[in-house]
Amino acid sequence: MRTIAIDMDGVLADVYRQFIDMHFRETGERLNPEQLKGLTEKEAFPYLYTHVNSEGFFKNAPLIPGAKKALENLSAKYRLFIVSAATEFPLSLTEKQAWLNLHFPFISWKQMVFCGSKEIIQTDIMIDDHFKNLDTFSGESYLFTQPHNALTSPGKHKRVHSWAEVENILLHHSYLTKTE
Amino acid sequence: MRTIAIDMDGVLADVYRQFIDMHFRETGERLNPEQLKGLTEKEAFPYLYTHVNSEGFFKNAPLIPGAKKALENLSAKYRLFIVSAATEFPLSLTEKQAWLNLHFPFISWKQMVFCGSKEIIQTDIMIDDHFKNLDTFSGESYLFTQPHNALTSPGKHKRVHSWAEVENILLHHSYLTKTE
Repeated sequence: MRTIAIDMDGVLADVYRQFIDMHFRETGERLNPEQLKGLTEKEAFPYLYTHVNSEGFFKNAPLIPGAKKALENLSAKYRLFIVSAATEFPLSLTEKQAWLNLHFPFISWKQMVFCGSKEIIQTDIMIDDHFKNLDTFSGESYLFTQPHNALTSPGKHKRVHSWAEVENILLHHSYLTKTE
Repeated sequence: MRTIAIDMDGVLADVYRQFIDMHFRETGERLNPEQLKGLTEKEAFPYLYTHVNSEGFFKNAPLIPGAKKALENLSAKYRLFIVSAATEFPLSLTEKQAWLNLHFPFISWKQMVFCGSKEIIQTDIMIDDHFKNLDTFSGESYLFTQPHNALTSPGKHKRVHSWAEVENILLHHSYLTKTE
């Protein structure tokens, strides 16, 4: 079975919604994701480090639409690993694992990787919203669209805009028969 | 620079000393590591799961002799990653990171990986005390001696008994000039 490394923040967990909600509660200003296109997350959310270090930030993050169903479907054809940059924010480690256990009970602890750099991760496929993770990866790479990467050419990576699109590609009969 | 994936428990952290001390406090019986050779950790320590789920188990683990100095020296010639199976014990995640920060301040969060299975880790070299981690690894593999593996043939892996021995091999002039 082929293996997929799947990122959490911005791919499974909707951290933009968390950032936007926190920004609204603190400033009264409701940001629109359209306005944030092309800005780094740090540029879009000046209090980003305060937010991600807040208790509950990761634990209460909403799901990216379609993520749960997609992982259930992909699990039948691939071995999935959730690979999340987490060690920069030590508080996030247990919150992220609790969040995965809550929303993805079919993903076991054996399939979870919490790391800093992803450069030593080797799977057949990687799905991530950050170039820094995809650029050092040698397999088939998918750039999951988020406002911070929306205006940049995906380069050698394939851009995907939703989990429905990921499913269309990776579960399509012709793709599976080609790669199995 | 070549990369090394270094295990924590039984390689950097002396978990046998923790297990033996806890066993003594609970039963009054002082186990000798010599008696434990050839037994799995679970066979040697019937209360293993209670121990590793105790607060402080990982945070207060003593260092394997020579580990700190060896990693300082290896850091000059290799890129090091600490790769630890941690997601089976969610409490361990923050304790393990705190322990690394305390004893190895020169190892940054970017170099830490807390995972379940190590099968998707790709580095040039791996140092580990468990066959299950080394057997799926495709690079140069070193089996770090611990009582549980002491009576088993290392097979395709190279057995090392101490950090001094690891340094002798990986920092030896002839080895470095061959592989650089």
